[in-house]
Amino acid sequence: MADEQPVAFTVDDYRARLRRAAREATDAGLAGLLITPGPDLTYLTGYQPTAITERLTVLVLSEDAAPTLLVPVLERPDAESATGAPALTLTDWRDGDDPYSTAAPLIRPGARYGISDSAWAMHVLGLQHALPETSYASLTQALPMLRAVKDPHELGRLAAAGLAADETFKNILGVRFAGRAENDVAADLARLLREHGHSQVDFTVVGSGPNGANPHHEAGDRVINEGDMVVLDFGGLKFGYGSDTTRTVHVGEPTEEEREVHDLVRQAQQAGFEAVRPGVACEEIDRAARKVITDAGYGEYFIHRTGHGIGLTTHEPPYLVEGEHRPLVPGMCFSIEPGVYLPGRFGVRIEDIVTCTPDGGRRLNNTPHEMAIVS
Amino acid sequence: MADEQPVAFTVDDYRARLRRAAREATDAGLAGLLITPGPDLTYLTGYQPTAITERLTVLVLSEDAAPTLLVPVLERPDAESATGAPALTLTDWRDGDDPYSTAAPLIRPGARYGISDSAWAMHVLGLQHALPETSYASLTQALPMLRAVKDPHELGRLAAAGLAADETFKNILGVRFAGRAENDVAADLARLLREHGHSQVDFTVVGSGPNGANPHHEAGDRVINEGDMVVLDFGGLKFGYGSDTTRTVHVGEPTEEEREVHDLVRQAQQAGFEAVRPGVACEEIDRAARKVITDAGYGEYFIHRTGHGIGLTTHEPPYLVEGEHRPLVPGMCFSIEPGVYLPGRFGVRIEDIVTCTPDGGRRLNNTPHEMAIVS
Repeated sequence: MADEQPVAFTVDDYRARLRRAAREATDAGLAGLLITPGPDLTYLTGYQPTAITERLTVLVLSEDAAPTLLVPVLERPDAESATGAPALTLTDWRDGDDPYSTAAPLIRPGARYGISDSAWAMHVLGLQHALPETSYASLTQALPMLRAVKDPHELGRLAAAGLAADETFKNILGVRFAGRAENDVAADLARLLREHGHSQVDFTVVGSGPNGANPHHEAGDRVINEGDMVVLDFGGLKFGYGSDTTRTVHVGEPTEEEREVHDLVRQAQQAGFEAVRPGVACEEIDRAARKVITDAGYGEYFIHRTGHGIGLTTHEPPYLVEGEHRPLVPGMCFSIEPGVYLPGRFGVRIEDIVTCTPDGGRRLNNTPHEMAIVS
Repeated sequence: MADEQPVAFTVDDYRARLRRAAREATDAGLAGLLITPGPDLTYLTGYQPTAITERLTVLVLSEDAAPTLLVPVLERPDAESATGAPALTLTDWRDGDDPYSTAAPLIRPGARYGISDSAWAMHVLGLQHALPETSYASLTQALPMLRAVKDPHELGRLAAAGLAADETFKNILGVRFAGRAENDVAADLARLLREHGHSQVDFTVVGSGPNGANPHHEAGDRVINEGDMVVLDFGGLKFGYGSDTTRTVHVGEPTEEEREVHDLVRQAQQAGFEAVRPGVACEEIDRAARKVITDAGYGEYFIHRTGHGIGLTTHEPPYLVEGEHRPLVPGMCFSIEPGVYLPGRFGVRIEDIVTCTPDGGRRLNNTPHEMAIVS
């Protein structure tokens, strides 16, 4: 059952990930990795500090030393209780100390390290000041695929999250749209995601009528009308892994043009999906989906990349974007979400989470693609 | 009434802040500021992107050019609708472009810029790559007090948040502690903060018995017992500004030792409070509070700084910590929160939010300091 708690990751899982990450760093010509709180640290150790703050926490990882986690002393008890802690050497610093001087002896001068994308600027600059000879590369640039290939336990979590999104969509079709504010439908989506086991709701986009033409509109005061197209893009975390589904519904009967645009986006999404197979460059998925839209004359209205990876976060490598030449590998998971946005009028986006298998793509959510009519 | 919506900030407020920030940058020897999404951008423009992601958004601010906000094209409509947008020149980049090359012409090579503390490492490194001659300093280092002095409208919001925290504490004294899990009391605190107008709950620490001795413990499965000390530290945002109050309560009658430690922390908190006046170095507040605890022989059990600033975030400059020589200025707002943590036994912390006035400190929350007895 999707709602049973999945098997917990063990210290051995974290040990294996730490070893692989250190080896991949070496292979990429790096002396090691500097991992700060966020998904990288969760992935490698299971440790999630209460809050990400101005106090430096950093895991120094390399093949030639034990993995060492530097934490503020008052967060040490939390760090010690993380599942992966027995695989780490813990060390700490105290308010009033300079944390960068404390970190410096763990880092090799003159060498190059990968550093978590979302590490704070103040920490990067602090390290650069303490270690002027050392250089840094963002993990997305240096080791983009570190977390991109999911193991079977991770795939199970992503499938559970996708199933919960399917159930959420099924339920949302039963609520009233016409005459209610976008914000109210968004609240329904959030409630449903939680009812279906999400511990965290990351976004509940309800873009009705012209608001649907702004792909980053969330939800607002606008009252949804009979005759509106409505983009619904919702997701969050279940069992620590992400869901992210978009469907575009219509309040009452759509016009001919609305049907055409929806059908076009549906075909583009399908074309992207069918292009998925191991060894294909990420950008080819973008091209396959975009070609359908461009050929129909709507190319200028598809103003974003086709997709992004998903796992411990709802936005991570691999990115399906022109210029991303790296190949798909079985176990990678990502969105395929083409859209057409007609400014001031309406937008259509259709999005599934897809994993690459040895035989091609497999969807991790399975909501139908036909335009649903709501009332 | 504290629960009336405060007067909204206007584009003129943002214009004045932008001008002052640019001038303070010049005075600090910087060519300008690079402001990324988060509290700095909210403060200067009112713009809060839906999510902070790998897509670069940056405000380039200097005295010798119009403030320019670079955004991903698909977030442009959101940016345009921010209150401060009319004070900005907007420009954008598109998926597949290199955002750092797009930003580069806005930034002076060879000059030094302040950059938001929480700007992502990948963006700092991307800018350093595109502009190898330019140097960067974190805002906390370069211009730490940019948001530290609150104007009367901000003080009103902080006082409203403090009053809501007072009401929350008053209500929590009526709930059952003994026999319930920490998590359940934490859920009560979160519910109460929302009932009293918080839009966001940042933390609801419930540290009972030995858990109270870990100052960063949040709340867990532990069932609270008769005879436990319980540290309650809760806060979040109301009207966009922070609350942060800690009180330590006791389930049933405390022992003599528990009373003594609580009284000691209460005296330390009062000593810190009484040290507040304009011109006094931040570290002096820490020293005043710490001296009380050290003199009583508990110095080694007070393992964190005495306080942190509060405003758009619940952790920001000024920091009341040894080594922070900068003086208090009227309008600064910060926590004073000494604590004593006896490992494996119990902890006590007492925290108020205080603002510096021309005549000394004024508390922005007013919950009594006596140890409350709960059941």
